[in-house]
Amino acid sequence: MVTEEITLEGHIIDSLILSKVLDDILAYGADFRITEMRVGQTKDDRSFARVEVSADSPSALSEVISRIARHGAIVKTAEDVRLVPAEQDGVFPEGFYSTTNQRTCVRYQGNWHDVLDQEMDCGIVFDKATGQFRCVPVADIKAGDLVVVGYRGVKVTPAARGPKVGVFEFMSSAVSSEKPKNVAIKQIADRMRQVRASDKKILLVGGPAIVHTGSAHHVVQLIEKGYIDVLFAGNALAVHDIEQALYGTSLGVYMDRAIPAETGHEHHLRAINTIRRYGSIRAAIEAGVLTTGIMHAVIRHGVEFVLAGSIRDDGPLPEVITDTLVAQAAMRAHVRSVGFALMIATTLHSVATGNLLPADVPVVCVDINPAVATKLADRGSFQTVGLVTDVEPFLRELLAELDLA
Amino acid sequence: MVTEEITLEGHIIDSLILSKVLDDILAYGADFRITEMRVGQTKDDRSFARVEVSADSPSALSEVISRIARHGAIVKTAEDVRLVPAEQDGVFPEGFYSTTNQRTCVRYQGNWHDVLDQEMDCGIVFDKATGQFRCVPVADIKAGDLVVVGYRGVKVTPAARGPKVGVFEFMSSAVSSEKPKNVAIKQIADRMRQVRASDKKILLVGGPAIVHTGSAHHVVQLIEKGYIDVLFAGNALAVHDIEQALYGTSLGVYMDRAIPAETGHEHHLRAINTIRRYGSIRAAIEAGVLTTGIMHAVIRHGVEFVLAGSIRDDGPLPEVITDTLVAQAAMRAHVRSVGFALMIATTLHSVATGNLLPADVPVVCVDINPAVATKLADRGSFQTVGLVTDVEPFLRELLAELDLA
Amino acid sequence: MVTEEITLEGHIIDSLILSKVLDDILAYGADFRITEMRVGQTKDDRSFARVEVSADSPSALSEVISRIARHGAIVKTAEDVRLVPAEQDGVFPEGFYSTTNQRTCVRYQGNWHDVLDQEMDCGIVFDKATGQFRCVPVADIKAGDLVVVGYRGVKVTPAARGPKVGVFEFMSSAVSSEKPKNVAIKQIADRMRQVRASDKKILLVGGPAIVHTGSAHHVVQLIEKGYIDVLFAGNALAVHDIEQALYGTSLGVYMDRAIPAETGHEHHLRAINTIRRYGSIRAAIEAGVLTTGIMHAVIRHGVEFVLAGSIRDDGPLPEVITDTLVAQAAMRAHVRSVGFALMIATTLHSVATGNLLPADVPVVCVDINPAVATKLADRGSFQTVGLVTDVEPFLRELLAELDLA
Amino acid sequence: MVTEEITLEGHIIDSLILSKVLDDILAYGADFRITEMRVGQTKDDRSFARVEVSADSPSALSEVISRIARHGAIVKTAEDVRLVPAEQDGVFPEGFYSTTNQRTCVRYQGNWHDVLDQEMDCGIVFDKATGQFRCVPVADIKAGDLVVVGYRGVKVTPAARGPKVGVFEFMSSAVSSEKPKNVAIKQIADRMRQVRASDKKILLVGGPAIVHTGSAHHVVQLIEKGYIDVLFAGNALAVHDIEQALYGTSLGVYMDRAIPAETGHEHHLRAINTIRRYGSIRAAIEAGVLTTGIMHAVIRHGVEFVLAGSIRDDGPLPEVITDTLVAQAAMRAHVRSVGFALMIATTLHSVATGNLLPADVPVVCVDINPAVATKLADRGSFQTVGLVTDVEPFLRELLAELDLA
Repeated sequence: MVTEEITLEGHIIDSLILSKVLDDILAYGADFRITEMRVGQTKDDRSFARVEVSADSPSALSEVISRIARHGAIVKTAEDVRLVPAEQDGVFPEGFYSTTNQRTCVRYQGNWHDVLDQEMDCGIVFDKATGQFRCVPVADIKAGDLVVVGYRGVKVTPAARGPKVGVFEFMSSAVSSEKPKNVAIKQIADRMRQVRASDKKILLVGGPAIVHTGSAHHVVQLIEKGYIDVLFAGNALAVHDIEQALYGTSLGVYMDRAIPAETGHEHHLRAINTIRRYGSIRAAIEAGVLTTGIMHAVIRHGVEFVLAGSIRDDGPLPEVITDTLVAQAAMRAHVRSVGFALMIATTLHSVATGNLLPADVPVVCVDINPAVATKLADRGSFQTVGLVTDVEPFLRELLAELDLA
Repeated sequence: MVTEEITLEGHIIDSLILSKVLDDILAYGADFRITEMRVGQTKDDRSFARVEVSADSPSALSEVISRIARHGAIVKTAEDVRLVPAEQDGVFPEGFYSTTNQRTCVRYQGNWHDVLDQEMDCGIVFDKATGQFRCVPVADIKAGDLVVVGYRGVKVTPAARGPKVGVFEFMSSAVSSEKPKNVAIKQIADRMRQVRASDKKILLVGGPAIVHTGSAHHVVQLIEKGYIDVLFAGNALAVHDIEQALYGTSLGVYMDRAIPAETGHEHHLRAINTIRRYGSIRAAIEAGVLTTGIMHAVIRHGVEFVLAGSIRDDGPLPEVITDTLVAQAAMRAHVRSVGFALMIATTLHSVATGNLLPADVPVVCVDINPAVATKLADRGSFQTVGLVTDVEPFLRELLAELDLA
Repeated sequence: MVTEEITLEGHIIDSLILSKVLDDILAYGADFRITEMRVGQTKDDRSFARVEVSADSPSALSEVISRIARHGAIVKTAEDVRLVPAEQDGVFPEGFYSTTNQRTCVRYQGNWHDVLDQEMDCGIVFDKATGQFRCVPVADIKAGDLVVVGYRGVKVTPAARGPKVGVFEFMSSAVSSEKPKNVAIKQIADRMRQVRASDKKILLVGGPAIVHTGSAHHVVQLIEKGYIDVLFAGNALAVHDIEQALYGTSLGVYMDRAIPAETGHEHHLRAINTIRRYGSIRAAIEAGVLTTGIMHAVIRHGVEFVLAGSIRDDGPLPEVITDTLVAQAAMRAHVRSVGFALMIATTLHSVATGNLLPADVPVVCVDINPAVATKLADRGSFQTVGLVTDVEPFLRELLAELDLA
Repeated sequence: MVTEEITLEGHIIDSLILSKVLDDILAYGADFRITEMRVGQTKDDRSFARVEVSADSPSALSEVISRIARHGAIVKTAEDVRLVPAEQDGVFPEGFYSTTNQRTCVRYQGNWHDVLDQEMDCGIVFDKATGQFRCVPVADIKAGDLVVVGYRGVKVTPAARGPKVGVFEFMSSAVSSEKPKNVAIKQIADRMRQVRASDKKILLVGGPAIVHTGSAHHVVQLIEKGYIDVLFAGNALAVHDIEQALYGTSLGVYMDRAIPAETGHEHHLRAINTIRRYGSIRAAIEAGVLTTGIMHAVIRHGVEFVLAGSIRDDGPLPEVITDTLVAQAAMRAHVRSVGFALMIATTLHSVATGNLLPADVPVVCVDINPAVATKLADRGSFQTVGLVTDVEPFLRELLAELDLA
């Protein structure tokens, strides 16, 4: 749906102008919403109406708008975007249009174009060669790139929250730990089945608490059954997963007995060192050293992954991308094809992924801390559902709903 | 175990006095711990040792202490308690001994007596008729009651935290949501089985989140299989439980679909009104009006319960005890026989119960908010284990561990 | 403002009916909002409009509605309330209307009446003698009371959130600890000055953390300068305040040095016992025993107070009302005249007070825990502003804004 | 203090061996603690004592131990460390010693050496050229480096918590929001004055909430008066600080009115773009574009800083180090000279810094969320004090205590 606003002023009610305009809108298969109406107090006073006209496509909208204009109503006509070349690498031109994560169209030479690679906090660059508009982060701008400047000719279409999408009916209300979760988990399972059957991908963004809470084997199950296509995580998830695979501990605590191992606090560094000796996680698997766990399943089942570095990392593991711009680019390459994102127990990676994802990708954020889900929802990702619950039982029940338990 | 401290001073090492004293302690089946030792710098300087002597019973301790005293060592001898009559109803005498929740003995006429009804923040009253000492809250004091004053002749024996008790091995470390819980839940199930097989009782202290999270049927299961002997709760738990039984909603939200009912916010008040019309929950059950839920199971299976009033209550339900002193007295009557307490999702009732329970009763406090478990543990209940997790999956897994799922 | 909905159907646009109706509404000084509009697809199709008509008073609304009705438009006419006598003490009749905390009018014998003592989760009782309608809690119902049943003839007028009220401009957005608070505190100070100068009262609802955080002297300042008219609290606030006055400690910790006193954990019970010996806090003040602190200032300056009992209380102090229904009634008597409520660091008393307060009384809830403010705001108190901040610096800055520092 | 354990066995009490050993320890200016003592049950049985001997320096300890050994007591003698060359770059040899953040000594050729650059989760490398031992992170290891393997010859000396250090007397107890903070803030101010007067540096680790809460000008004050020598932060702190300097908003909200600016959500990206156009924050200052704020003060007053990149960054600003290993190295270079660290409202940077800091550097972690302080304290930084409070009033009061307000 694209929307344009028109205003009608004058004797629009008794002259039947409003009536005719609304007739025309409906006749063209478009829809309207009267957002403001001021009726003159006396017969001689002028009335005023503000109407939002919606159509399925930019072209249909153009058609109905041009038709309405003939009634003499003042139409708030759209103009073309203004394009200004960047003067320096890595710098937008002054007054650049700053993107949201909502679906966006730009008007160029009288026609509306969808913006590709929709992402928050980028500029919109026009590629003359292909005729396409695309979101580009500031660091990737090259001198000479044609960048959209100002708000003119830019239209944002917020993702519907209504029954049409209906991915998560339970998502209407606020983040709370005091709600029954079984309905939510059932709907998440349904969504994952749909996406698995489609050409879209399921993304897991996970923190090390997946391992600490004893949930690694649940994630392995999801991977083995094809429910995870991409994994975004940091060094910590992989390290603690590998620590558990090599020593049976996580942060030095035996997972099966919940008691600390002697010198267990060193296990994570020994795990890192072992993998570094083999050169990579993959090499350690091929050498038969790493035989279980999430990273083992990820590599064995061809799940794509990005391990992004952070300044609190020990080691890190060889596969960790220590340059954050390079890591962002790697993540960006993957999010284009994501149809569902499950974010578990990581604020940093969840927020980073939320920044990259278009707003129409449904996201479920699971954390025992309500602040994390709230933080993500605050960033304008309307499709983000926060589930305040414990990681391990959440994953256990998700497996049951997917008939994997 | 009761403990007394002795000090030895002088040429206790080269004179072999220390050696002999320690020999005697062991010979009498008692045990010792050297808590301080200062050895004279030169041969002429005096040495000093402080030794804690422990024995199984007050009488055994008296015996070994009197034996040790003969070595000329200065024994920090115990004296009898001082008893002062209360002058007014509801007021302790000045300087009264204020109790902890730890096992306490008092020395009276040369003998050690266990204090009965151990409870925090009480006074100790001597009953001449029975010769017993007993914890009494200030509101229950009668003029003339003989109350222990000062610290003299009072001995507190903290509950051991060591391997002997070993109820919960996982309890050593701090409250955390990032620990695997399956081991903890397994141990809780074991404990519940032991207590069910004993003459002690299992106490459930529960908040309304049990109902909101869709866990009421799990609690019903526990009741039906005999795993709950006593229930402490407030008006809210019972109201939301009965709302769910009558309308299928909790706080107006349908539990099976997680969507709000029209006018659902009125359900809880209608539920209260319905029960009030019948005169009591029991009467509504007998009339065939209330046929499911926690309160139904509680009454049908003869579980004892105290519904304690609070100023935030609507209604309340007829069985709610609106006077808090009367409610405390009702709770106090039950805690004497409790061998295990499970506290779920209620700060108010958990802290209130924690104040009444002796320190040697194991307590598990389950809440998704780490602050609640921390608060309880801070109040000196050493046997309190905080489990930061979601209520519904906790109860589901507990049922599985009890083979009830 | 009261509102009525009308619907117009037929050839309302080309027949100019809609135009005339809107003209009339404006001519009578009323206002309208078109909430729905369906325009017939062809000239022969009928159109439909749903319009909300608002007027300043029930009588003005009746007038404009009767005028509009003459245009042949179908008016969704109001009917009188249905009144049913209660059959039992303490029980509403079946189908009773359950109140919200929003301003409510009922239509009786063709006229609209404001409901008095507006309060959440009550019934509405008609007093024949006075001709008044009043909110009554279920426990206070007497057999024979005429109670409103059903929704017919009941109109709820939510408190406006717009610029007209404008009490707290900062309150628009969600509860957050990451916002600058100085603007909020300035507005709270302004509001307190306004209310102090009016005939309304300022209510403080406070928890013991006021004392623990070293803020008691700030509250004393507010009381001395006339900024607190009523205090709602529990036993704990008073006990810890008196403990500090008598021993210089709070929970046994010296407030000026932040280190624990030896045997300090007993101080609160000794404080309780001392006051009980004198018979009341007031008597202890008159005896010259209690000479500082919040309760001292409250009594010396004639601040009204309700100390409501809870099952976690020690003692309690003599002034504590241990029966929760009696305590609610005492609180209810005070809230009628409250023009501003400041709730600090207490969930129980804040929620209890929130249940009693009409929705148009502005409330500021200060807590370092975001969950408390969220909980209160969730209960439908639209005027509730949550301030997530530390108690002591909040009060310090509030004093500075009130020029008391 | 360095410590060695000795055990004595046999007729050590009646033979006076224990007495003589303890005499000798004291005679040599060393100290002892009897950690275990088993006295034979009969005269013929052997006794056993385990004694920890402490001396001020490794050499003094060696002397007293060799003296004690002459009494025939079995001394648990120290052995030299084992050094194994690394085989690969970036990989420790198998069995490497994994460091803590506590002061550590290693025994090499019979002498004890302090390990330099003490840091958690590193290896210890011996530099033949200088004869020094040093902590080295795994990524910096070069093939051929001599790395300590095993626990032999390694001695860890935990930082004392006792009255000797006494930096923060209030730190004894747990993290809590319910404590008075004025004493704590006074002691922090004292510490900052001491460190400023010394050759050590004061480190501020800060998150963007410093700006959001309206506290930037407090930090500017601290910088101007010489109370901050080093700043560790991320892109976000600098971006929001510069956004405020350029637009008067933080996250798009006007700081002085607490209301959102139109298109304010774009301000942070425009701020980034402006600085990128000038090439650096420093260049923007020199061009007269950036004239206020924290980063302006940092650069104008020569405060050293590390802005470390993260995957959630927009932009980033030119000075941000996007490679996390490079950023860690930059932070590591600064922590060697830090005498006090103040960490405000950032989990990521606080934990990262905590990993690098030796345990004997006092750290104060200020956050309104108790979980952050707990997390840091859990990582074994004993000198870490958590202050659960609001950032702005904390800084305001700190300035007052430093006489800067």
